[in-house]
Amino acid sequence: MTDAADPRGFHMTSDEFRRNGRAAVDWIADYMDRIESFPVLSRVRPGEIRAHLPAVPPAEGEPFDAMLADVDRLILPGITHWQSPNFFAYFPSNNSGPAILGELLSAGVGVQGMLWATSPACTELETHVLDWLVGMLGLPSKFRSDGTGGGVIQDTASSSALCALLAARERATGFRVNEVGADGKLTAYASSQAHSSIEKAVKIAGLGRENLRLVEVDGRFAMRPDALARRIAEDRGAGKAPCFVCATVGTTSSNAIDPVAEIGRICRDEGIWLHVDAAMSGTAALCPEFRGMQEGLDLADSYCFNPHKWMFTNFDCDCFWIADREALIRTLSVAPEYLKNQASESGAVFDYRDWHVPLGRRFRALKLWFVIRHYGVEGLRHHVRRHVELAQKFSDWIDASGRFELAAPVPLNLVCFRHVGGDEINRRLLERLNAGGRLYLTHTTLGGRYTLRLSIGQSRTEERHVSSAWRTIQETAAELEREG
Amino acid sequence: MTDAADPRGFHMTSDEFRRNGRAAVDWIADYMDRIESFPVLSRVRPGEIRAHLPAVPPAEGEPFDAMLADVDRLILPGITHWQSPNFFAYFPSNNSGPAILGELLSAGVGVQGMLWATSPACTELETHVLDWLVGMLGLPSKFRSDGTGGGVIQDTASSSALCALLAARERATGFRVNEVGADGKLTAYASSQAHSSIEKAVKIAGLGRENLRLVEVDGRFAMRPDALARRIAEDRGAGKAPCFVCATVGTTSSNAIDPVAEIGRICRDEGIWLHVDAAMSGTAALCPEFRGMQEGLDLADSYCFNPHKWMFTNFDCDCFWIADREALIRTLSVAPEYLKNQASESGAVFDYRDWHVPLGRRFRALKLWFVIRHYGVEGLRHHVRRHVELAQKFSDWIDASGRFELAAPVPLNLVCFRHVGGDEINRRLLERLNAGGRLYLTHTTLGGRYTLRLSIGQSRTEERHVSSAWRTIQETAAELEREG
Repeated sequence: MTDAADPRGFHMTSDEFRRNGRAAVDWIADYMDRIESFPVLSRVRPGEIRAHLPAVPPAEGEPFDAMLADVDRLILPGITHWQSPNFFAYFPSNNSGPAILGELLSAGVGVQGMLWATSPACTELETHVLDWLVGMLGLPSKFRSDGTGGGVIQDTASSSALCALLAARERATGFRVNEVGADGKLTAYASSQAHSSIEKAVKIAGLGRENLRLVEVDGRFAMRPDALARRIAEDRGAGKAPCFVCATVGTTSSNAIDPVAEIGRICRDEGIWLHVDAAMSGTAALCPEFRGMQEGLDLADSYCFNPHKWMFTNFDCDCFWIADREALIRTLSVAPEYLKNQASESGAVFDYRDWHVPLGRRFRALKLWFVIRHYGVEGLRHHVRRHVELAQKFSDWIDASGRFELAAPVPLNLVCFRHVGGDEINRRLLERLNAGGRLYLTHTTLGGRYTLRLSIGQSRTEERHVSSAWRTIQETAAELEREG
Repeated sequence: MTDAADPRGFHMTSDEFRRNGRAAVDWIADYMDRIESFPVLSRVRPGEIRAHLPAVPPAEGEPFDAMLADVDRLILPGITHWQSPNFFAYFPSNNSGPAILGELLSAGVGVQGMLWATSPACTELETHVLDWLVGMLGLPSKFRSDGTGGGVIQDTASSSALCALLAARERATGFRVNEVGADGKLTAYASSQAHSSIEKAVKIAGLGRENLRLVEVDGRFAMRPDALARRIAEDRGAGKAPCFVCATVGTTSSNAIDPVAEIGRICRDEGIWLHVDAAMSGTAALCPEFRGMQEGLDLADSYCFNPHKWMFTNFDCDCFWIADREALIRTLSVAPEYLKNQASESGAVFDYRDWHVPLGRRFRALKLWFVIRHYGVEGLRHHVRRHVELAQKFSDWIDASGRFELAAPVPLNLVCFRHVGGDEINRRLLERLNAGGRLYLTHTTLGGRYTLRLSIGQSRTEERHVSSAWRTIQETAAELEREG
């Protein structure tokens, strides 16, 4: 077969792409318009989606229209609508027009930014936008790229925690674990409320779960610095080598805020790496009035927050900063001949392949740049303030209700609450609410008690959605009470 | 501020999204049409992109048109054009219309598939398409999800290697390293030509680089099974605990094919985990005539290949299969209260959060599904065969040239070659070719000698691009010879 006989093979031409692309864009716009008509939590049973898919792939190509129709017919019933304004579950994973279009352009340009040389704009825009964010969030300037630090986009806060732990492990051992392996002596610390990704990282890095100390929390579910100090002292006494502390600004269970400054002073005095995980709540620091929650960040060695949670940037986009980038690069660097190039050897550029686990990377800075430019700093602040205001309102309603109580303080946009009637009615309430389709909530346990979580952060959540959720919650609770 | 006064805040409306989305789609189509007009390798100097970006982010939002214009003006000069048909560097990272639109829809729907329940379609379509690929690639049926195995999409082969190594580490120690930490005894094996991600994984997992054995290769740069067996025996004699072997099907340097069957028998007899990394070359197994390269896969514990390299699916999309998924899940599972749900507890579903490092995950199966359906199996095979045919042609030209020689066998679509005049002229040749902008090649060293690599796999590379590359290479070499 010659090129002349088949100049394009089976590829979609640019004209077909224009036509199909419009259809896809319109599909998304229509989806935005009708999103409130779907039950928020998918109602399919296990295996139901697969049951409608053909057992074998097609031998011959199919038209794009058929694929798009199948997204409606076969896929949508199995979608839990994270972009519904009635999605109050977990933490948000919100998106926005500029982010989606940034992702589209990133896929269209299709560069792989493992090295500066493999697309300088991919690296430089990322470094630049992460420097912007240092200013926008009021982070310490040591995280800027013009000193010894710098920022990088990771997929998730789990990966950021792993990278921070690895750099901490290597710094604590003179980069010896990388060479000879771990020896079971290193210990790590996080509060009992810290995210499960810390335990996952500790296992992956070969420290062992038994060497992770889950430090006691106070009545607000925040880490107790005195307990941290005691655990470190006990470990040193037992011949262990403390290397890593994770402080959380906004825990997943209840949005508890660990006291970063006090923890930071302990870490500084003890020479221990401090990582601060602000995956969801970090976005609030766009507003100066919320920055107090992470005072003491100047004592942190690394920090992350996720624009893909609450900053209108579609998943995945976790921003990770490090004060001493050399520790990370030395930990993760590999330099095979086939990746060598003049720019890398000059030392004048960042090669982001050495800042995370994967080698390859896509151009995620584009969507982040688009989001920041589309909203402007003021637009982003507006929505953060609005979400916090709505959560405070909801929290007031809970407080005044008699039938419900708050289960934890509400520093920002997460409300933990429960029906006063005990665990069983709360379990049934959650189940019935989610089955109803009008909203989606998830739960946690706090102080051993079953607790509902209402997380406000979906891009399009407005007051009417929160009021409607509150009405539905009250009505459903009343139903359950009547049923007894 | 009330909702009534500002019903939508600063968000892009669905109508604006339609308009801006069309502009973005057209921009990409125009980019496809004019891609051959750009120098393939970006010519900017370090810092040049950042120098044109404003030092601070905008306080107020900007129009989408301005952002799109800036992609042209500020970003394009810093792009190395991976989607140019004249991109012959590294391995391809190709894309296609259906993949880009699948990515777009995935961003638009914006689901986060960490659990089955958080969007059943995201999990089930992924499992289903990876089962399709088991058939399409002729992989052992033990990798299908209906037995003890199953497939998952990872970001990159680096992450797949890490996950395989972690499961191997835990299986070898009765899941003890996860609990108590590593002890420096575990050893891992890969050929001296294996990808740098294996060394990276060995460091991350706490084994230590000194415990990675880079096994000797034969004259074709493939692992020598006798050398592997000898290394394992030596390690056992020294009290070490061999736990992991990585065989490569298509090394990055030269596309060397390790003998999977012989290596697999050693691993089976020794009870060692065998991971097979076919990141680029695995796509060739779409064609039955190329499957011989990985005969013996039935002895592998895990396997990966990257549709984001040679199968027209934009980055990131690495497919990873495991024969005993419980080993992986047990290794990576964490189950905090806030992620618990009925579907997970029923055991009837996969929760992919436990199959990789990150917790969150986007709906990447959509683009893979679109690619397979758009091309059909026959369309994908057509392009793989065409690329291999072009590489064989180029290799014949090298062979017949007198001035150049092949530096390694050419099993598929990568040609390693060099000018017969020694390392210096090859270095200068590469530099001048890439500076010229008409094509982009990279290099490696083989047998200690500087070697050029011509990798054929960009979606739109046709015979005219390869012939033109060959003419440019010959003319440039002649220039350098004349200059002496």
